[in-house]
This record gives sequence, structure tokens and C-alpha cells, in this order.
Amino acid sequence: MLTNSLITPPSKIIGILGGMGPMAGVDMLAKFIARTNEYGKATCDQDHIPVLLSSIPDVPDRSEFLLKNGQDPYPHLLSYAKNLQNAGATCLVIACNTAHYWFDRLQADLPNLTMLSMIDTTVQSAAANGKNNIGILATNATLATGLYKDKIRGAGLHYLEPNHDDQQAVMESIYLYKAGQVDKAITLMTTQKDKLISQGADIIIMGCTEVPLILADDQRTHPQHYIDATQALVDEAIAWCYQN
Amino acid sequence: MLTNSLITPPSKIIGILGGMGPMAGVDMLAKFIARTNEYGKATCDQDHIPVLLSSIPDVPDRSEFLLKNGQDPYPHLLSYAKNLQNAGATCLVIACNTAHYWFDRLQADLPNLTMLSMIDTTVQSAAANGKNNIGILATNATLATGLYKDKIRGAGLHYLEPNHDDQQAVMESIYLYKAGQVDKAITLMTTQKDKLISQGADIIIMGCTEVPLILADDQRTHPQHYIDATQALVDEAIAWCYQN
Repeated sequence: MLTNSLITPPSKIIGILGGMGPMAGVDMLAKFIARTNEYGKATCDQDHIPVLLSSIPDVPDRSEFLLKNGQDPYPHLLSYAKNLQNAGATCLVIACNTAHYWFDRLQADLPNLTMLSMIDTTVQSAAANGKNNIGILATNATLATGLYKDKIRGAGLHYLEPNHDDQQAVMESIYLYKAGQVDKAITLMTTQKDKLISQGADIIIMGCTEVPLILADDQRTHPQHYIDATQALVDEAIAWCYQN
Repeated sequence: MLTNSLITPPSKIIGILGGMGPMAGVDMLAKFIARTNEYGKATCDQDHIPVLLSSIPDVPDRSEFLLKNGQDPYPHLLSYAKNLQNAGATCLVIACNTAHYWFDRLQADLPNLTMLSMIDTTVQSAAANGKNNIGILATNATLATGLYKDKIRGAGLHYLEPNHDDQQAVMESIYLYKAGQVDKAITLMTTQKDKLISQGADIIIMGCTEVPLILADDQRTHPQHYIDATQALVDEAIAWCYQN
């Protein structure tokens, strides 16, 4: 609910819990707008999906906490999610795959907020795709916590992740991108994507919200190689907005 | 002030009043991130500027109200600005030039919020540029209300706007972009930019937040032709964040 009543606010406002990293939140909001245009749903500003984006990036590093006893990011995640709700958001989406480790806990702490899971909707999208061998490019922590692995295998699909050394290159690429070193990030990630394909992956989940930014050019030229978790969640959220 | 105290929030959070149109708010946030990277200020997510973006696009059309007795957008602007403040924003910027018609009224209604004006900072940027003949590409309402004209002339510079018919093409381009018809929008706007240059403009203020989106390619190849109002405000806001 909005905290003031000057106007009748939209009944559905998407809150994006972003800043992890900042460009991933921008990418998600841009995909809301682009998809609404592609659907032919918007002839003016006012036709677009209402979104509130929290891009407050001081949320402690998710992988550092899950793998290296770093600072717990949960109080920041909960605080910024509550602030989105206070500002009017009625549905919460998280622009970070790794942060989905705390999805169920957030939903329990925010019972009045609809939450849509990037992991669930991406695996559903993979299953609907008809491919069997699903590769993944994601953070060390997303792999270690089994966020995707368990659900992909649960859907009866074969799961393929980079080996230990290759995964270090994936992680280095993600951190380089977050540090603004885009060209190096692209080179490293493209090599790992090609390896997964050569190892038999039919399709690759871009399972970290930096990956569709890093591999944007390759995704344009080889769209058949990818399932973009950010896009899958945006499509789910837009469908939720248009319900009833 | 944040409405909950799970964490110690950043002392400075930029609130972007966006959605006018949605891509203009995305462009502004992306410029915060890109500039922080260019400055070499960010080696990880946590180094970036904290931003809250309101992209709730049901704010009634600013030009329609100012020129055609449309619905008053002010209650929406005030409501969404208040919600940004409630969610933690300590400084407000508006990702719409025309909406700066209500800048002083918003500041009076939100006395505890720092507000930075896109118009003021853009005209300062033009004056510092050393050029004398300042062309402008903006909405009918921004021109009719004299938002830029008065301040440009006040700075002792020559002000040049499109003639009546040409301005209709500028406005058509802006509305086409908002409706997702990007190619047509680019063709129309590029023609009007070239006309202003041929009429003697030394530099052109992109004085509608859709214009840097529409003319992005031309700005890349002819950066010397442009002052981007969105970029000018972002630079001012980043400087504000790094003060003290």
C-alpha cells in the first residue's frame, strides 16, 4: 500500500530488488519496457508496467557470505524489500540469482507481498524448451547451493556445470564485469560458454544476472543457445500484471 | 529516513522520479553506473551510487496538461516523490525535463529532501562550454513554459529553437519513441537536429529525456554537437554524493 493517498495508485506495482549488481537491475527494468513494446501493449508512457527499482548496492556480497563466511546480506535484502513494499510495490522480484537462496525466508517475512522466483520460472522455461542437456553459467554460490541443479534434475533434465577450474573463470568474469572491466569479462565468459556447448549442452541457462549483460552480443547472434533467467522472470511478472 | 531499522542505510540515496517515459529513467540510472565506472570509483557492486527509481508511468502527460487542459500530473509527481523519500531517498532528481515546471512546487512540498534541477545544471554546463548559440530539442511544453529559454538568455547566451512546423516533428518523434516506434523517431529527430546545426546552433541541448535515447547513435559519432541534460544532472548528483 502506498503511504500517502494523494492519488489512486496502480493496483499492481512490481518492486525490483536490484543493485546486485546495479546493471543487472537496469537490464531487468529495460526488459520490462522492451517486452511491453514487443507485445504491442504500449502506445504511450502510461501503458507501461509500473516498477519500483531498489538499486542500493551495499547489500553484502552473496557469494562471500555463502562460501567464505562473509557478512550476512539478509538484513539488507529484507530492509530494501520492505522499503519497496512501503513505497507501493505489490509484487517483488529479485534481480540476482544467488540472492534466491533467501527467497523462501523473504517470502515468510513478507507474507503480504507476491513474490515470483527467477529460479522456478527459468527451470520451467528450460523444461518447456524441449531440450534435455541444460548447461549453466552462474556464480560459485549459486552452483554450491544447488539452486538450479536440484530443480533441473527434479524436472527430469540433465544438468551440466563447468568443472572446477572453468568455474573459476566464470566467477572471475562476473567480478570483472561488476568492476567495469567489460572486455576481459566477455572474453572469459564466451570461452566458458563455448566449452559447455562443446561438452554437450543443448542450451545454457544464464543463471547470474550479469551473464546476459556480459554475453549480450553472443545472445543476439546465437539466441538458440540461451535461456536468459532475467528475461524469463520479466515474462512471468508481466503475465502476472496482465492477469485479471 | 528509512522506515525500518534492520540495517544502517547509506547516508545518501538518490531518488529518481522516472517513468516519464520509462526508458528515460533507465537511461539515467545506467548513466549513474557508467559514469561511476568511468571515474574508476567502483571495483565492486558496493562502490556504486545508491539509487531508488520510481518508474510508475501513470503520471498524466505533462505536455497535455500544460498545453491542452489535460489532467494535472502534480498529485502523481508529489505522491511518487514522497514514496521515494519514504523508501530512503535523501536527494531527488527528476528524469523528465518538462516535469521541471513543477520543480519549485515539489521542493516547497518536500522541504527535507535535497533536489537537483536538470534545467539549472544543463544551462550551467552550456555556459561552461564556451559556445554562444544554443539550440534546443525538447517538448512543446518545455519550450512554451520557457524552462530553458529564460535561463539560457539569463546566462547571456543566444537561444535557438525549431520553428513551429519543425517543432511538431520533434514532438512527433518523442511520442513515436514512447510508443516503441524507434526507427521513425530517429529519422524525424535527426532531421531536426541537422536543421538546428545548419541554422547556426553551436551546440544542442537534448532537453527532453527521450532525446538522448533517440539520438544515441548520432551522439556517439558527434559528441561535440550535444549537451545531454540527463548526463549533466547525473554528473551533478554524483558530485553531490561524493561531497564531504
